[in-house]
Amino acid sequence: MTPSDLLAILSDVERGTMSPADAAARLATLPFEDLGHARVDHHRSLRTGLPEVIYAAGKTTEQTAAIFSSMVADGVDVLATRVDAPTAEVLMRAHPEAVHNSMGRTVSFRQTAVSGNGGGHIAVVCAGTSDLPVAEEAAVTAETFGARVTRLYDVGVAGLHRLLAVRSDLLTANAVIVCAGMEGALPSVVGGLVGVPVIAVPTSVGYGASFGGATALLGMLNSCSPNVTVVNIDNGFGAAYTAVLIARAAQSQKD
Amino acid sequence: MTPSDLLAILSDVERGTMSPADAAARLATLPFEDLGHARVDHHRSLRTGLPEVIYAAGKTTEQTAAIFSSMVADGVDVLATRVDAPTAEVLMRAHPEAVHNSMGRTVSFRQTAVSGNGGGHIAVVCAGTSDLPVAEEAAVTAETFGARVTRLYDVGVAGLHRLLAVRSDLLTANAVIVCAGMEGALPSVVGGLVGVPVIAVPTSVGYGASFGGATALLGMLNSCSPNVTVVNIDNGFGAAYTAVLIARAAQSQKD
Amino acid sequence: MTPSDLLAILSDVERGTMSPADAAARLATLPFEDLGHARVDHHRSLRTGLPEVIYAAGKTTEQTAAIFSSMVADGVDVLATRVDAPTAEVLMRAHPEAVHNSMGRTVSFRQTAVSGNGGGHIAVVCAGTSDLPVAEEAAVTAETFGARVTRLYDVGVAGLHRLLAVRSDLLTANAVIVCAGMEGALPSVVGGLVGVPVIAVPTSVGYGASFGGATALLGMLNSCSPNVTVVNIDNGFGAAYTAVLIARAAQSQKD
Amino acid sequence: MTPSDLLAILSDVERGTMSPADAAARLATLPFEDLGHARVDHHRSLRTGLPEVIYAAGKTTEQTAAIFSSMVADGVDVLATRVDAPTAEVLMRAHPEAVHNSMGRTVSFRQTAVSGNGGGHIAVVCAGTSDLPVAEEAAVTAETFGARVTRLYDVGVAGLHRLLAVRSDLLTANAVIVCAGMEGALPSVVGGLVGVPVIAVPTSVGYGASFGGATALLGMLNSCSPNVTVVNIDNGFGAAYTAVLIARAAQSQKD
Amino acid sequence: MTPSDLLAILSDVERGTMSPADAAARLATLPFEDLGHARVDHHRSLRTGLPEVIYAAGKTTEQTAAIFSSMVADGVDVLATRVDAPTAEVLMRAHPEAVHNSMGRTVSFRQTAVSGNGGGHIAVVCAGTSDLPVAEEAAVTAETFGARVTRLYDVGVAGLHRLLAVRSDLLTANAVIVCAGMEGALPSVVGGLVGVPVIAVPTSVGYGASFGGATALLGMLNSCSPNVTVVNIDNGFGAAYTAVLIARAAQSQKD
Amino acid sequence: MTPSDLLAILSDVERGTMSPADAAARLATLPFEDLGHARVDHHRSLRTGLPEVIYAAGKTTEQTAAIFSSMVADGVDVLATRVDAPTAEVLMRAHPEAVHNSMGRTVSFRQTAVSGNGGGHIAVVCAGTSDLPVAEEAAVTAETFGARVTRLYDVGVAGLHRLLAVRSDLLTANAVIVCAGMEGALPSVVGGLVGVPVIAVPTSVGYGASFGGATALLGMLNSCSPNVTVVNIDNGFGAAYTAVLIARAAQSQKD
Amino acid sequence: MTPSDLLAILSDVERGTMSPADAAARLATLPFEDLGHARVDHHRSLRTGLPEVIYAAGKTTEQTAAIFSSMVADGVDVLATRVDAPTAEVLMRAHPEAVHNSMGRTVSFRQTAVSGNGGGHIAVVCAGTSDLPVAEEAAVTAETFGARVTRLYDVGVAGLHRLLAVRSDLLTANAVIVCAGMEGALPSVVGGLVGVPVIAVPTSVGYGASFGGATALLGMLNSCSPNVTVVNIDNGFGAAYTAVLIARAAQSQKD
Amino acid sequence: MTPSDLLAILSDVERGTMSPADAAARLATLPFEDLGHARVDHHRSLRTGLPEVIYAAGKTTEQTAAIFSSMVADGVDVLATRVDAPTAEVLMRAHPEAVHNSMGRTVSFRQTAVSGNGGGHIAVVCAGTSDLPVAEEAAVTAETFGARVTRLYDVGVAGLHRLLAVRSDLLTANAVIVCAGMEGALPSVVGGLVGVPVIAVPTSVGYGASFGGATALLGMLNSCSPNVTVVNIDNGFGAAYTAVLIARAAQSQKD
Repeated sequence: MTPSDLLAILSDVERGTMSPADAAARLATLPFEDLGHARVDHHRSLRTGLPEVIYAAGKTTEQTAAIFSSMVADGVDVLATRVDAPTAEVLMRAHPEAVHNSMGRTVSFRQTAVSGNGGGHIAVVCAGTSDLPVAEEAAVTAETFGARVTRLYDVGVAGLHRLLAVRSDLLTANAVIVCAGMEGALPSVVGGLVGVPVIAVPTSVGYGASFGGATALLGMLNSCSPNVTVVNIDNGFGAAYTAVLIARAAQSQKD
Repeated sequence: MTPSDLLAILSDVERGTMSPADAAARLATLPFEDLGHARVDHHRSLRTGLPEVIYAAGKTTEQTAAIFSSMVADGVDVLATRVDAPTAEVLMRAHPEAVHNSMGRTVSFRQTAVSGNGGGHIAVVCAGTSDLPVAEEAAVTAETFGARVTRLYDVGVAGLHRLLAVRSDLLTANAVIVCAGMEGALPSVVGGLVGVPVIAVPTSVGYGASFGGATALLGMLNSCSPNVTVVNIDNGFGAAYTAVLIARAAQSQKD
Repeated sequence: MTPSDLLAILSDVERGTMSPADAAARLATLPFEDLGHARVDHHRSLRTGLPEVIYAAGKTTEQTAAIFSSMVADGVDVLATRVDAPTAEVLMRAHPEAVHNSMGRTVSFRQTAVSGNGGGHIAVVCAGTSDLPVAEEAAVTAETFGARVTRLYDVGVAGLHRLLAVRSDLLTANAVIVCAGMEGALPSVVGGLVGVPVIAVPTSVGYGASFGGATALLGMLNSCSPNVTVVNIDNGFGAAYTAVLIARAAQSQKD
Repeated sequence: MTPSDLLAILSDVERGTMSPADAAARLATLPFEDLGHARVDHHRSLRTGLPEVIYAAGKTTEQTAAIFSSMVADGVDVLATRVDAPTAEVLMRAHPEAVHNSMGRTVSFRQTAVSGNGGGHIAVVCAGTSDLPVAEEAAVTAETFGARVTRLYDVGVAGLHRLLAVRSDLLTANAVIVCAGMEGALPSVVGGLVGVPVIAVPTSVGYGASFGGATALLGMLNSCSPNVTVVNIDNGFGAAYTAVLIARAAQSQKD
Repeated sequence: MTPSDLLAILSDVERGTMSPADAAARLATLPFEDLGHARVDHHRSLRTGLPEVIYAAGKTTEQTAAIFSSMVADGVDVLATRVDAPTAEVLMRAHPEAVHNSMGRTVSFRQTAVSGNGGGHIAVVCAGTSDLPVAEEAAVTAETFGARVTRLYDVGVAGLHRLLAVRSDLLTANAVIVCAGMEGALPSVVGGLVGVPVIAVPTSVGYGASFGGATALLGMLNSCSPNVTVVNIDNGFGAAYTAVLIARAAQSQKD
Repeated sequence: MTPSDLLAILSDVERGTMSPADAAARLATLPFEDLGHARVDHHRSLRTGLPEVIYAAGKTTEQTAAIFSSMVADGVDVLATRVDAPTAEVLMRAHPEAVHNSMGRTVSFRQTAVSGNGGGHIAVVCAGTSDLPVAEEAAVTAETFGARVTRLYDVGVAGLHRLLAVRSDLLTANAVIVCAGMEGALPSVVGGLVGVPVIAVPTSVGYGASFGGATALLGMLNSCSPNVTVVNIDNGFGAAYTAVLIARAAQSQKD
Repeated sequence: MTPSDLLAILSDVERGTMSPADAAARLATLPFEDLGHARVDHHRSLRTGLPEVIYAAGKTTEQTAAIFSSMVADGVDVLATRVDAPTAEVLMRAHPEAVHNSMGRTVSFRQTAVSGNGGGHIAVVCAGTSDLPVAEEAAVTAETFGARVTRLYDVGVAGLHRLLAVRSDLLTANAVIVCAGMEGALPSVVGGLVGVPVIAVPTSVGYGASFGGATALLGMLNSCSPNVTVVNIDNGFGAAYTAVLIARAAQSQKD
Repeated sequence: MTPSDLLAILSDVERGTMSPADAAARLATLPFEDLGHARVDHHRSLRTGLPEVIYAAGKTTEQTAAIFSSMVADGVDVLATRVDAPTAEVLMRAHPEAVHNSMGRTVSFRQTAVSGNGGGHIAVVCAGTSDLPVAEEAAVTAETFGARVTRLYDVGVAGLHRLLAVRSDLLTANAVIVCAGMEGALPSVVGGLVGVPVIAVPTSVGYGASFGGATALLGMLNSCSPNVTVVNIDNGFGAAYTAVLIARAAQSQKD
């Protein structure tokens, strides 16, 4: 049922060609969810202004390319994540003005103007080069969603001085994303240094008893810093999504 | 929004005191879910006619007794599961005509007439005396919901002759519930003997590598009999609920 | 021992050439299981009328093709599941009138007439495109077994409006199959909307802490909807098999 | 080393009684962390203004009481979590003006003035009565930290209408905490309804394959709603801590 | 169907009051398994001559005592395992001539004569005092079943000299039972020293990462000695049952 | 130290050229283990007469071929397990009289005469074609070690009649090896039918919640038949090794 | 065989009353392990000089007291670990000069003189009060074994300043023991600060996804600091044992 | 801030161009961690003299080669671990005087003189050829770090004589590294034979229930020998790193 369908019913009632009781019966069984669908989506996109996102893993190159082009044609900002190299090549050939981050496996296309610093400031922290794909997925997502991102890489807990050296950067962020594999200790340490929410992303980096990231995940869930929350293994996108929601609100606070 | 609220709006439209556009705006934002709520519940209870059920575990004796008495006062059939001994005593003192199954930890109170054999025929199978609490929870639930139940206990796979001896009972059931702990092999064997759905209930019976029923659960999920589906460990109630839905339909077929 | 062997013994008794005691001794040790085998199989196939099924995974192309052709020659309906592309090509070349569903990895060959709507109505629900192979395996299996199937895809719990929009389709099904990966929440939500058994199929879709479908599996086993039972990860065939048994009975009820 | 120690060294250099090289040597080995310690703590408490918190589990009643009274004497707001009944009785006897929430196992003592609505609005959602201890721990923590809390209990996914009925409350919150056991599906559904961060708290409610909350935890980590982050099982305090940080920023935005 | 039922049918055929075809039809559907039951049980008991066994865990004292006394009255050898102290006291009071092994939690009653050394020789090995309950359950079971048992306790792998000192005892056994907790390394070492089957019993002894015996179980399953097979955690009875079967055959060889 | 070294020392003592004290000192520190090594190995091979075995997995083709040829040159029986196709081809080219079992991945070379039926009779049972590689590894190992093997394949628990039909073969075996994947229920059923030890081999056959054979392994460890012991997943060789030890003893008993 | 037995044989050879061949035969089969036993034990105790240790868990009070008193009578140093309160009371009553550490659950009795600082310097680090029982078990063990112990408690990773403040103590230790529960991150951070071996002890402190210390254990095994090795959950004794071996050697280096 | 920066500030104070208060303010906020960093690193390298290490797994050949060459140019000793064959070829071509251990997957380049036997003596023990890659990684690491290494391979627990034959080598080592897969029993046995720390390295060798080394890991953590500590699966490098620290101290003791 479209809004015009609803208006048609109500006009029938107004004209007297449909009784209120009949109209009530029809409205009680109408597929109101379609109305709800449109409204909810509209409200959400109005409120968050977040771009459309395509999760390319498990889609063929053709499917991803078709969806990407269709969204670009709609004039909205577009972000594709988990894009493998061949698919990225196809997307970039079709949309040369898009941006491909091969480390983060993203292709993004910003079509709307970025307005000031409304997106806030997010720090993305990780310990080693192996965590970079996840960290970059988070960083690019946050940037595409309008946040300013400070990358603080190679600051593992076994060399505290490197982490302490970047503390001032950490202290100005509205939200901090920490990607770590192996023992996953970094979010606890970072959480103790800052006063904002820390989104911890376990990475599948490691071997043996790292169990594909499960150890890092468990460690982060047991963090002794109370400002740490956790997302799924390697889920840089999800961490950035929540961080963006937080950073916007926090940044607006200071405007 | 109640139906009368809806009618009031529509009457306003009919009378011309509210424009169709204004009414559309109000209806687009009404809490239609309340309407949906009433209808769904009504439809379900009309269709299934199943009694109200109280899961007593995690409730205080006072809470369980209050809910039980309130439902009895409504005139509906009532079933309380996972009722410990002290709570059962309280319920039975308040409602002497209720039925307490101490093995199955249930207290049931049937207030409506049971109509013929409409509930179908369910066989409840288990291997050993330790599985009896789960098997009885399933059996009493099925009976309270109107099914005829045949109990086939002590028929483990290590003594096939006992199982084969009751095959004729199995073959007349509309659905079979199989409760088993340890290796959980019984549902596969039963599934190979019958042509109806088998609902497998792993029980927490066993020690060591039975891991509280997890081994039986995993075994049942890997059953080589395609007519086996599985519920949670010790979930006799859930198995009976689905078996009742199946047996009703199947029994009606033969009426 | 064939039935004629049995008759021969009994005729000997009738003729007086074998005493009842000798016959009893022979019958007590006869390989009665062969009798039982034939009878059980016969009974089952008579009662269910289900096609022969070949599980192609773990078989060579040659093995699968030989079995398939042999069954086709018997004139029965045949369904092969988990058929990889090269094997499907071989099967289709040999039996051009067969049907290949590449998404569901099935090749089916219906040789008997489908009689009316006796197979009932099954809804197959899934959340995302990655669940499609499992959902299609279930759908094709159900169709090959004679059920009418409504496919309700792309209705995940994070966008309730899409699910609510198809509620009417759900409400007319005799059984519902729900395939879901990741958190496996969809069966609980669907279970709350319908009054028929819901067969939940966890899929191996996801990454990280989805642990190859184990998370979805565990979630479904803990469903708060009592009409949900569960099968193995990715077991679309098994879900359809049980759903068909349920839907037939339920449909017959209405005939 | 205190600031005056540092000044003393520098004065020695200024006076020429210590060479720059000697001072450099001393400063290179000074316990600068003590300086850092004081500063960091100071900064954090200035920035967040959060009360002191005592985790009473694993502490004796005497230890908890001593720490609590000491903090009260400092004039700051105090919150004790995981307080068992005997300890709560001791605390309440010593501080009759404190507030004991027996369901949430907290004792809180607010000594500073609450300033307007600066703490923002947090919705705490849960599915069943068994989740209440965790939900109340979260709610009381958030309230003690200055947030306005809306409790939305008994809104499980198997009865969507109840959840949809409270959607307007959800839509006005700055952050949503969702506590759920069993399959842990509620955060995904809530996440799809709102545009703010959702903090998911798995609870140890359930039996069998709920594995003490692990199933709910895994389900939440695999949520298909990108605005969901997760904390440890039963960690209502941690969820509230992060929610408070988010809600403050968001609320300030609107001031 | 009893044997006399079968004879009745056959007599009817002999008398001509039942046609062979009718008899064939009846026999094809008779519960022949009852016949099979009797025969199989008879064969097994004739072949093995093993005593009746009562697994007392999960039975009430009254149930265990009733079964025990009933078996004693039948004149057969009786063994009750997992007997707690109160139950043992009841059994011993009723049957003063029975033997109670409090360490192994068994009560045994041998009523038949032990014939020579036909039961063979079994060595029961364990590492520490904590493994004694399981080792004694195995030893008493083997003795009650007629085997000669050599107990070799306190011979852990961290002190090889103790194990090597008893090698001659090991070398004369027909089968060796090795009970070990913690890392479960003992069966591999023993397996390398002997040329007979080693039955490994993981015990639930240990703490932390022993996970209730799971670590010992896994270690034993990965034994590098090919003559090691494994039973469930703490299953001294099962190990002895198989060891007895082996030792009898081996011992007979030498007679 | 060789025996001649020992004799040399003792001769020195006899001749008086070495004092008993000096000899004691030397003997107390001699590498007696080398003596022990030789003796133990000698004793074992004399007692068991088992062929030499090469575990080819993890060895290069060259390594396996070199060891194989060296053993063949020694004139002993040789068995290589887990031999991949290329390695098998090399072995067979070098030793055309060897036997390659491609299903069981073995190459065996029997050089000694097989003496009568001294090896006993072993039944190898499995449920499906996917279990064949493991079953054949067991069967070939047992045959190479001198046992007579009866293969009973395709007798799964979902079709009991097939298993019951081969019961007579099972009843004459001295030991039974049962290979099963998925739910691993077959050993329990077989264990209930026979009176000899059953060696259960879980196979990695299955998908989803079979977890690479772990489910079958756990099921077998929880078998309700007390004559079942278990080896590692896919360890057909180990099962045969123990079965051979049992069958020899049992067979000798009947000679 | 005792040394005197060996000498007797050799004397017989010297006297000519036993031929070298006979002596060789006897020596080849003598229980030489007993010799080895004595020698090994002697060597070890001479080299390490470590006290005798009684693991009291799983022993009765009577058993522990008897062993303790027997060792005290031998004049050696004695340490009993995992001593519960009632047992400690009995031990202290019998040996008032012993030392009871109720937090660490130890009773120790030093009877030999402590010689200088030969035992080296060990730092025992932990994060919270809940880790104290394990940390104290380690500290008391190390002290009883002759090491100087510096206790550095309450220095968790969420408050780095506290850890950095004690760095100088860490830098002078010969070995560091780090006890931590929850996420187990502390050893990695400490490992990065020091240049000596760090023995990590996971503690069972925590709740929910700490899984009884498994999460801390896994985290420590994945430490990014290469000087970290790990012992079992709560195994303070084992950590101290190895730390003592390290510290002695290291300390001696500086003497 | 470099030391010269610090001196510049202090010189300004000395010259009177900066007040002590201003200098204090600058020093209180200076990135002192950089100072700390330099000092800690300096101290550690001075104390340990350990080479630089490159973990090549997860780095491209180009990255590894660039880092390697840069370190070589610095004149320090360099060790690259987990080097695959193509990368090793590139490194060796660029630095022909480097040493490639293909079994241990290392490339090492020693540029500094090795001074006497200061590195101590380390024994590296393993059971089978499959453990060799891990054992060699440990051995080469230890050698590159200056230790003398004795390799004791092929000494599994199923053939104790082989292990006992090398006991004298074990007894002279300052630290022992034991690599073992499957059941991981070897460290316990070795630990019982020696009086020095044993570093246990579980290897991912095995199949089925070895679960990629997890079983060996768990076994080692539960070792009954108190001188055993454990590192991650396949972490030969980490074991050698700690063993080197131990062996140096121990060896110096004897100088």
